[in-house]
Amino acid sequence: MTRLKPLLLTMGDAAGIGPEIIVAAFRQGELGNAVVLADAGAMRRAGAAMLAVIESPADLADVPPGCLPVLQPADLPADLAGLPPGRIDARNGAASARCIEEAVRWVRAGQGGAIVTAPIHKEALAAAGLPYPGHTEMLQMLAAPPEGPMPAVRMMLVNPELRVVLVTIHMSLRSALDAITFDAVLQTLRIAHVASAAWGQQRPRMAVAGLNPHAGEGGLFGDEELRIIGPAVLAARAEGLDVQGPFAPDTVFMRARRGEFDLVVAMTHDQGLIPVKYLGMEQGVNVTLGLPFVRTSPDHGTAFDIAGQGKADPASLIAALRMARRLVAAAA
Amino acid sequence: MTRLKPLLLTMGDAAGIGPEIIVAAFRQGELGNAVVLADAGAMRRAGAAMLAVIESPADLADVPPGCLPVLQPADLPADLAGLPPGRIDARNGAASARCIEEAVRWVRAGQGGAIVTAPIHKEALAAAGLPYPGHTEMLQMLAAPPEGPMPAVRMMLVNPELRVVLVTIHMSLRSALDAITFDAVLQTLRIAHVASAAWGQQRPRMAVAGLNPHAGEGGLFGDEELRIIGPAVLAARAEGLDVQGPFAPDTVFMRARRGEFDLVVAMTHDQGLIPVKYLGMEQGVNVTLGLPFVRTSPDHGTAFDIAGQGKADPASLIAALRMARRLVAAAA
Repeated sequence: MTRLKPLLLTMGDAAGIGPEIIVAAFRQGELGNAVVLADAGAMRRAGAAMLAVIESPADLADVPPGCLPVLQPADLPADLAGLPPGRIDARNGAASARCIEEAVRWVRAGQGGAIVTAPIHKEALAAAGLPYPGHTEMLQMLAAPPEGPMPAVRMMLVNPELRVVLVTIHMSLRSALDAITFDAVLQTLRIAHVASAAWGQQRPRMAVAGLNPHAGEGGLFGDEELRIIGPAVLAARAEGLDVQGPFAPDTVFMRARRGEFDLVVAMTHDQGLIPVKYLGMEQGVNVTLGLPFVRTSPDHGTAFDIAGQGKADPASLIAALRMARRLVAAAA
Repeated sequence: MTRLKPLLLTMGDAAGIGPEIIVAAFRQGELGNAVVLADAGAMRRAGAAMLAVIESPADLADVPPGCLPVLQPADLPADLAGLPPGRIDARNGAASARCIEEAVRWVRAGQGGAIVTAPIHKEALAAAGLPYPGHTEMLQMLAAPPEGPMPAVRMMLVNPELRVVLVTIHMSLRSALDAITFDAVLQTLRIAHVASAAWGQQRPRMAVAGLNPHAGEGGLFGDEELRIIGPAVLAARAEGLDVQGPFAPDTVFMRARRGEFDLVVAMTHDQGLIPVKYLGMEQGVNVTLGLPFVRTSPDHGTAFDIAGQGKADPASLIAALRMARRLVAAAA
């Protein structure tokens, strides 16, 4: 484990539960070789009794046991620990973005094996002039080469019984209907196929959900299955991918849960996330596919309603850390 | 139990699993005071060794124990038992419709307490010149008073841990976006509220799912929550209903499962059916709300792929029979 490059763990919005679940995971011995990109004051407020402020991920080797390794980006707003928990603040938004930028910089410099992100708050980001709908889009932008195109990425949700890759994410359902194109579905299948190889599954059995009730019932309830999704499935199969569908959305996730498929490609955010979250979010992990580095995160938000009260559950963050380590090890 | 009016159980499409799951439920002693509206030959083929053909539901009292009570509608196509299982046939479509019509006729004549329907096949119905997308729409039509308007009905799916009422059902997702109106949402809430009282819950705690990711994120991902769903929730509350939402669709079902709400109003077919079916369909029951009589059905289709092989599971039909009996008893 110590030979692998460190994980780079970003604190998220300091007014949310990010800092405290990081401290809780640390106390449970689950941080492993992760370095925390954070404001040291915010981490102290969250209960980190002993912390070691380091200058680069490589310094992790010198951090004594029992000390939380914190890499504090330059230019963080002052006195974040003085801001109230559970409130939107542009300074917390700016700080959460700085930590992510630094994590990407280090991983691109070969100093980090993967990025694990604690939850950010969209409105705080927007207040800081960074109108990203989520981590995925921000990382996609940061991962683009200078002058180069942004990589095509997809959001995958994983829990112990289900893996779901989404064709569309943070947009209205009406916009999603227009964003579900032949190219978007085919590209999702390609990205999911390649990403599965990264953790040792060379040819995952992929199922594709339809968009309409009963997958359109032969065109009776919508024709996207006939015009778009079906042809994309056939094109993916012609490329050698193991793909079936489109299937009725209301049963394909149950079938995958029972072992019939290794992953499901879902058309919309909630089509995919409803089944992943149905049994609870403790074990859910969000994995971004298509980036030039591994990135995972917990499957929940900042939870402003309970932030700062010490009762947030670190289970999903711990699952995200384990998943990142597994992916880094598989790629090593 | 014997004082309650009989349940009227329709055989569904005789080429599907309907007849055999009825026989299986009968063998398990689960038919109770149900009368089967069916073709006697089809029921014999499905394994009913002894059956009593009766003329009206009231004759049930004279049927000896161990005999399956079959009420065979007039004008059924001849020799249904000679048609192959698992194949679409207009004669099976016509017969399945005749059984439903007869069930409605008897229940409206005060001779039946509720209707329980085994699965029909849409394409067989269409081949018989009856282009109903499903039972719900057909029953709605049959339940309309002469010259009167059709009753507003809603489909509810129930399993032991979740009750979901749908605003829209058998239409394309694109059409559903236009069918989700203030009136449709408010009417769904009223129907769900009234129907809950019928089984003893005077003021159910209802949650409303949003339509868009994160319930629109304050208008960022769609405005139906602000324009339509939110105002309908407020209007329902002004009428004294216990309603909350709209909530993020990806977590509201998990929250209901954990006991926070008694039922969830879902905007689309799959938004509601994905969570209901995720853990398996054995216990799922479909209940039609808003009809002038109780109607339940199993949560699965004709299963043409396994019909006639004796391996279909009667669990969902048994759950539908029990649910119907419970609703009839509560109303008595």
